[in-house]
Amino acid sequence: MDIIKETAKRIKPVDRKLIKQAEEHLANLTKPVKSLGRLEDFAARIAAITNRIEKPVLTNKVIITMAADHGIASQGVSAYPKEVTPQMVYNFVNKGAAINVLARHAGVRVLVVDMGVDKDLSELAAQGKIIDKKIAYGTKDFSTGPAMTREQAVAAVTAGMELAENEIKNGAHIIGTGDMGIGNTTPASAIIAAFSGIAIPELTGRGTGIDDKTLEKKVRMIQTGLLLNHPNSKDPVDVLAKVGGFEIGGIAGVILACAANSIPVAVDGFISTAGALIAAELSPFAVEYMFASHKSQEKGHRYMLERLGLVPVLDMEMRLGEGTGAALAMTMLDASVKIYNEMATFKSAGVSEKTN
Amino acid sequence: MDIIKETAKRIKPVDRKLIKQAEEHLANLTKPVKSLGRLEDFAARIAAITNRIEKPVLTNKVIITMAADHGIASQGVSAYPKEVTPQMVYNFVNKGAAINVLARHAGVRVLVVDMGVDKDLSELAAQGKIIDKKIAYGTKDFSTGPAMTREQAVAAVTAGMELAENEIKNGAHIIGTGDMGIGNTTPASAIIAAFSGIAIPELTGRGTGIDDKTLEKKVRMIQTGLLLNHPNSKDPVDVLAKVGGFEIGGIAGVILACAANSIPVAVDGFISTAGALIAAELSPFAVEYMFASHKSQEKGHRYMLERLGLVPVLDMEMRLGEGTGAALAMTMLDASVKIYNEMATFKSAGVSEKTN
Repeated sequence: MDIIKETAKRIKPVDRKLIKQAEEHLANLTKPVKSLGRLEDFAARIAAITNRIEKPVLTNKVIITMAADHGIASQGVSAYPKEVTPQMVYNFVNKGAAINVLARHAGVRVLVVDMGVDKDLSELAAQGKIIDKKIAYGTKDFSTGPAMTREQAVAAVTAGMELAENEIKNGAHIIGTGDMGIGNTTPASAIIAAFSGIAIPELTGRGTGIDDKTLEKKVRMIQTGLLLNHPNSKDPVDVLAKVGGFEIGGIAGVILACAANSIPVAVDGFISTAGALIAAELSPFAVEYMFASHKSQEKGHRYMLERLGLVPVLDMEMRLGEGTGAALAMTMLDASVKIYNEMATFKSAGVSEKTN
Repeated sequence: MDIIKETAKRIKPVDRKLIKQAEEHLANLTKPVKSLGRLEDFAARIAAITNRIEKPVLTNKVIITMAADHGIASQGVSAYPKEVTPQMVYNFVNKGAAINVLARHAGVRVLVVDMGVDKDLSELAAQGKIIDKKIAYGTKDFSTGPAMTREQAVAAVTAGMELAENEIKNGAHIIGTGDMGIGNTTPASAIIAAFSGIAIPELTGRGTGIDDKTLEKKVRMIQTGLLLNHPNSKDPVDVLAKVGGFEIGGIAGVILACAANSIPVAVDGFISTAGALIAAELSPFAVEYMFASHKSQEKGHRYMLERLGLVPVLDMEMRLGEGTGAALAMTMLDASVKIYNEMATFKSAGVSEKTN
């Protein structure tokens, strides 16, 4: 826990003076002031976060896709059997999944991490194809007790921090988050419910595509889990332990490490934003380093984004996870930095400025 | 006019059966059905438009950026002097403008066209740096008479069609539209006003960033122009001639040619969508080939999109034109086609399918 607290304490607000300087640079480029809208906001924030006002860089990009299983899946809250979690890990390794395609499109590396898949994946780890940070073979069913111990929750967040720190040490300019875990919209909904107190049916969606009956059960399971475990909403690690998931803890750790090391982080969709909620509770300043990649179709996502005060980069009506939204959002962030670095100024191009 | 009518007549609705086949292909990929949302819609529509259900292709991409001047600019309706139109053409040629940066980012060629800049640019055309389709040295001030003759309007649309046909013949898989013309939000607002009858202040925005007084004048000029010239809203070429612009006519021509030749067209922002309105009036089926690239900050844009029934790909709060929105949107369309072509199927990856 000490390392989490220390990392959270290192996170400082982004320097407003630097943002202002970046905006001044953008105002000199050959376009009406602010006419590139949010693209300019992205670039200014990235330049300020990374303290590179002269020339922000976003070439070394990585998405950390964390996989884990969930005890609650045994209650039948998902449309897919839980074998799909390891099957999809193999799909990631074989480059056949959506995240592989979109990361390649965006010029982003993908790091696949076993945070707690309910299958022995040590062979893939031995071959260097995935990273082994397995906390356990899946969480426990939170409708009958806590999902994990406090020690496991701390270990999950710490593992995420370590992974991100390592990537940053090796030159990453931005990190995106991603997840894979059959059943994991259930803990994600439980987490926003625990923090916000909003009615559970409002926060609970159809995940991979469940029917009405399964949705009803999912809501009931979340209700049961919260009543039984009564997570302390003032203690984000307790919330993670009682109703969370290993990959969600890992994502929170990745986000904290990015913020502590002054690099931007592209938070994917619903599951990743649950991790972002935990990170933000540990350090409110962490939010200033986040880019909300997209608006998920999953019902509760907008409440998460509202709580964080983030406006999503994209709205593609997606609900896949894996980091797919983060990959797409990175193409926009990349574009924004290129605008910042590559456009001519009014002076250099000999273009007349505004008259009225 | 005959060639315009003939081209419009060649435009057929996109085959619903092909869209269905494309959706079936997408349903077999390793992700919950429809979980990539609009990305899947884009891919299915592109596959159907181009009749390449096996393997849609979007590698050869071009944005046609059309520049022209506007007589109405002499009334002081813009924040910038009209010399900026040719100055920006030089900026395009020297690769210093936003469209150059974003097209490079998106892997898109840019074709710069002089549709009617109020300056002799024949030297640039002779050097092969721009294409000369100049109709005249700017339109006439539509607050004192028609912007152009009917012959000029026909010539503008025809020029756009020829340019696009030529690009398609040379292998373009998708074309984006773009514009440059100081003062051109004024004719664009006038066009949507003429077609829709919506109150002019609702449709008239701040363009490059005009103040309240200038905005008031702009509204008055549009009012005057419509009353004086009374364009026939049933005759889109008449609307273009009375209150339009040469680049807007050219854009309409580009869109018609794309639709007639069964390739998708990425319509940029406010000015380009004014061109799209004219194209849609000439052939309602043309809309099925359009992708609305982004939601412009320019006030009247949403009325244009509503009229066309299009939902923009992106909302970056941009209002620059040049084709910048089209370039960014193409990165999303590109991503969608890669998903279609490159993902594993449930069968090939050995991933279990949905159970409930």
